[in-house]
Amino acid sequence: MLNTMSSFISAKFFYFSLACLLFSATHLLAQKNQAWKEIQLLLTAQEKAWNEGNIDLFMQGYWKSDSLKFVSKNGVTQGWENTYERYLKNYPDRATMGTLKFDIVHHEQMDKKVYFVIGKWSLKRSEEKGDVGGFFSLIFKKIKGKWLIVVDHTS
Amino acid sequence: MLNTMSSFISAKFFYFSLACLLFSATHLLAQKNQAWKEIQLLLTAQEKAWNEGNIDLFMQGYWKSDSLKFVSKNGVTQGWENTYERYLKNYPDRATMGTLKFDIVHHEQMDKKVYFVIGKWSLKRSEEKGDVGGFFSLIFKKIKGKWLIVVDHTS
Repeated sequence: MLNTMSSFISAKFFYFSLACLLFSATHLLAQKNQAWKEIQLLLTAQEKAWNEGNIDLFMQGYWKSDSLKFVSKNGVTQGWENTYERYLKNYPDRATMGTLKFDIVHHEQMDKKVYFVIGKWSLKRSEEKGDVGGFFSLIFKKIKGKWLIVVDHTS
Repeated sequence: MLNTMSSFISAKFFYFSLACLLFSATHLLAQKNQAWKEIQLLLTAQEKAWNEGNIDLFMQGYWKSDSLKFVSKNGVTQGWENTYERYLKNYPDRATMGTLKFDIVHHEQMDKKVYFVIGKWSLKRSEEKGDVGGFFSLIFKKIKGKWLIVVDHTS
């Protein structure tokens, strides 16, 4: 009788543990998918803002901090303000901005609050200006409940 | 009497907690410093290997996996073998390789097993070949107890 009861409890405990494990796994996966969903929305919003000629709105994808980093062949631009000014200087008008398109190559959650994305960027422009493009790698961090770009390496 | 004893125990507990906190903080900091020390050694070993014309040894800093990623303006090279071949193709002889120098701009531990480094690279070469250089951002992961580059974005 005791044996049967103990088996029953063991079995119950086993199924309970299994349920907890499945619940945790599902929860973690949902969290991960949620992160990627939010980051995709941010990138789509950036494309849209750019293609409306709205650099201010485009910049909202970046962490508004002096610690933001923008890396290119020419160096590291430090801080949100300098990154903003860099964009304004390099893309002074709609014709230079062209039509932006992102294509994601790889994305990976590094940590609960760190996400990494590699992608291709291209600007379709007039024949006179010519198309340009390259690749980017982005580090996102979840800051005050919001995913934001903290490092952008664009080449 | 009881009050005094309770205060004594509280004080003891306070100092014990403080000691635990300090110990943990010191331990974490030591771990962090240790990570950066190991990564610095790896980068110095890469410079040395390169400057001895030894691309095989240089490649030991990279994760030997099909998941390694090398990002440049021209695209994403996937896997250790392809990255190795890319180096052999782009740097076929000592004159093209020149003398490599890394200058670290920023380094940051993202997670217990993820480290991020931004740096400047330059190749000093003959007048005929000309100097070249740019910036890199590296993601390191601690794999089987060893820090290795898992993503290299060089521009």
